[in-house]
Amino acid sequence: MRLPRPLENLIDQLSKLPTIGPKTAQRLALYILKMPGGEVKELAQSILDARFMVYPCPICGNLTDKSPCIICQDEERDRSLLCVVEEASDILAIERTGYNGRYYVLNRTFRLMEDGDLTDIDTENFQQMLQPIVQEVILAMNPTIDGEVISRYLHTIVEEKGIKVTRLAHGLPVGGDIEYADEITLRQALEGRKEI
Amino acid sequence: MRLPRPLENLIDQLSKLPTIGPKTAQRLALYILKMPGGEVKELAQSILDARFMVYPCPICGNLTDKSPCIICQDEERDRSLLCVVEEASDILAIERTGYNGRYYVLNRTFRLMEDGDLTDIDTENFQQMLQPIVQEVILAMNPTIDGEVISRYLHTIVEEKGIKVTRLAHGLPVGGDIEYADEITLRQALEGRKEI
Repeated sequence: MRLPRPLENLIDQLSKLPTIGPKTAQRLALYILKMPGGEVKELAQSILDARFMVYPCPICGNLTDKSPCIICQDEERDRSLLCVVEEASDILAIERTGYNGRYYVLNRTFRLMEDGDLTDIDTENFQQMLQPIVQEVILAMNPTIDGEVISRYLHTIVEEKGIKVTRLAHGLPVGGDIEYADEITLRQALEGRKEI
Repeated sequence: MRLPRPLENLIDQLSKLPTIGPKTAQRLALYILKMPGGEVKELAQSILDARFMVYPCPICGNLTDKSPCIICQDEERDRSLLCVVEEASDILAIERTGYNGRYYVLNRTFRLMEDGDLTDIDTENFQQMLQPIVQEVILAMNPTIDGEVISRYLHTIVEEKGIKVTRLAHGLPVGGDIEYADEITLRQALEGRKEI
């Protein structure tokens, strides 16, 4: 049986989203058909609002609906600390640790195998952030080869300005299991061992 | 950190959908922010179209965007067979078996513990379907207590008209394991055993 066209179309659209397979898409679509009309309008509007009202902060690249973003506006933030991340969603994770410095979001995942040249990356905004008040730049790239490559590139830029550069520690994840740790992580955990 | 309000709102809206927890909602929302604007508009529109253009067929209760639905319009269907299901989504499953009769969708899940009286169920449309051409009504309710209750109720209505009533066989699911079958299913499988 062919489904009604608008229903089939919705299932197709939902299947395109990450984590949603065809079965889940069908279940969600049938659920949406039974939702009150008002709630469905709100859902559709919230999708449009998020897409068209939220944009990267022109200063730091964080997601915002006003310019500059609340972190750039916040006078209480420690302006001597600058944490560089790949995606705005990484900020959410770092904020939960209690970090209170500023951020710079690359908003661009560098892929060594696909992207040509590191110098393609526009670092003008980043250089703008490296004001004299900044005393330390924390490179918080993902612990992958690509993250490592871009870290090293940014490292050279920051070092030229004579600012201290650090990166997140590698080691065993808390709650993890030594037996199942990969050898690179374990080697880094050994190298980074601390006196207790 | 507070998220931009439109983004927070979208995450809230998505979390209300089944199978989508707060982490998935955040992931989907951030994905939507990066989708091309045109695709986001299509997604929002497809949600509205499905909700407001699809409705239950006034004859059989199947989901449709035209009246009557394609199954009721289809002259090739075997009109002597009528299969009664709880939800329109059950039709999708039964169609895949190659069944070629008509359907009646209750569009209502009866819950013995919550709903008061079976006689609250509007059976007028159902009785309309029981034309003299119908020779067999297949009750395809979910194999639950509630499904059983409503099956028996519909049974009495169909029997009064002198039409043959059948229900789906209970037994071992194909690919299942006798060791893990519950005792009720296994007892039904024994009772329904067939000569080979």
